[in-house]
Amino acid sequence: MQTPDWIAVDWGTSNMRAWAMSASGTVLAEVRSDKGMGDLTPDQFEDAFRDATNGWDINVPIVACGMVGARQGWIEATYAAVPCPATPTGFTQPNSTLDVHIIPGLMQDSPADVMRGEETQIAGFLALNPNWDGVICLPGTHTKWAHISADEVISFQTYMTGDMFAALGDHTVLRHSVQSDDWDWDAFDTAVGDAMARPERIAARLFSLRAEGLLNGMTNATARARLSGLLIGAELAGAKPYWLGQQIAVIGAGNLTALYVRALALQSAPATQVKGDAITLAGLTAAYRRLKG
Amino acid sequence: MQTPDWIAVDWGTSNMRAWAMSASGTVLAEVRSDKGMGDLTPDQFEDAFRDATNGWDINVPIVACGMVGARQGWIEATYAAVPCPATPTGFTQPNSTLDVHIIPGLMQDSPADVMRGEETQIAGFLALNPNWDGVICLPGTHTKWAHISADEVISFQTYMTGDMFAALGDHTVLRHSVQSDDWDWDAFDTAVGDAMARPERIAARLFSLRAEGLLNGMTNATARARLSGLLIGAELAGAKPYWLGQQIAVIGAGNLTALYVRALALQSAPATQVKGDAITLAGLTAAYRRLKG
Repeated sequence: MQTPDWIAVDWGTSNMRAWAMSASGTVLAEVRSDKGMGDLTPDQFEDAFRDATNGWDINVPIVACGMVGARQGWIEATYAAVPCPATPTGFTQPNSTLDVHIIPGLMQDSPADVMRGEETQIAGFLALNPNWDGVICLPGTHTKWAHISADEVISFQTYMTGDMFAALGDHTVLRHSVQSDDWDWDAFDTAVGDAMARPERIAARLFSLRAEGLLNGMTNATARARLSGLLIGAELAGAKPYWLGQQIAVIGAGNLTALYVRALALQSAPATQVKGDAITLAGLTAAYRRLKG
Repeated sequence: MQTPDWIAVDWGTSNMRAWAMSASGTVLAEVRSDKGMGDLTPDQFEDAFRDATNGWDINVPIVACGMVGARQGWIEATYAAVPCPATPTGFTQPNSTLDVHIIPGLMQDSPADVMRGEETQIAGFLALNPNWDGVICLPGTHTKWAHISADEVISFQTYMTGDMFAALGDHTVLRHSVQSDDWDWDAFDTAVGDAMARPERIAARLFSLRAEGLLNGMTNATARARLSGLLIGAELAGAKPYWLGQQIAVIGAGNLTALYVRALALQSAPATQVKGDAITLAGLTAAYRRLKG
């Protein structure tokens, strides 16, 4: 393998990806490890990185994003306070023989909010789409909405909708009602509308999923789709000041992202779906150029 | 012990209470067992009852309420459909050598809803408070709101607020933020108001508890009280058509009931707090009299 000019690292809670990069942005090699931040103590990150990249020349700048910079990570990286430029700056270096630079997360004073990792996706999206203004939605366990203007992150808001979906589906009375591998699109669509219209009834509508199963034989597939629709619909009601009348990009892979795009379409809010794969690497590349520049 | 005329039983998911009763309503003896519905298969209920009441003459009418009548219980008891008289009628008898009569739960067609056990508390409250019209709130894992008029249950609505509190506090990112034995009343009050004003922002405000801890050192006691206030406030926003301008009774023991009374008071909605202990027995007594009458 050609000696890399730098190494890009996306180190999350449950796994790590690294790319050996040329200065021009070519990917020379790629590895993945299941040693996530959640499995490591601060003094174990360096060895985990060396193990994963065995055979690479790693005595080059290493730019990392994600939970590697959390309080429980390699070292707590600073937060940049919004509003701030979307391109990362102000890296944090762990105590290491390696030349590691961790990208700062973003914080917001009021309402209090934080992100770690998504800021790199935002930077990547803007690197690939210069001069883009609008709202970026990043669906996940903790879905982020970020308002972008003039290449700055103006504000953002996190909805813990995915985390709630898992907790409610697995650890409440609904665990009897929503376990299914099937799906009911009509139920999802109706539930989004119900929650948008009366978001305050969410805790009653959730119990109703159980009652509909007992009384009317509602299937688990329908109840599961309805649970998802109720939670995403309530989120869209809350995040309406973000997306209403804005250009919207939804970044992420797979089914969850498609649900947000569909729910927004039901509100006559067309959103562009952007696959996340290349976005994170583009953000790490933008950060590397800022580091060198 | 004097031979009872009948036996009253409150058999829930996690435990069972039985009272040996005289016809006039005197309690002759009382037992408690931790063999709840959740621990028993249908063919184990009779033995569990015999064990718990060992030494009693149990060849008398036995009137039971609660999850003993659930699908997973001794036998699935019918539901009475609202609107219907509050005093139970239409008992279900399991296949047993004992003379057991299980009180029907209540069901509602639309919005679909069910209750089992609380209907007996409602009957007991009305037996102790004849001609009472208004709204009864029964806080719990699944809090019930019931509209009462002319001794009938007109309609009801279940909010799974308690179930959500436990799932969110134990099984989401908030588990790091809300474990505490302390409490912050100011935070509770503020959160009730925040959720009443903007219930659709609940999933964002929940994540903010985590962010406030990371950024501003919010204590777990404050975050826990705020979590409770947000969920109860959102419930009050949803249940407003029930309680607004109505006479309100909140039935139940302990801290949770007091939280509802306080949250209602913050909305200038005075509620009477009624301890649940005697209420269930009064409801079972009303059911026994209907059975004999």
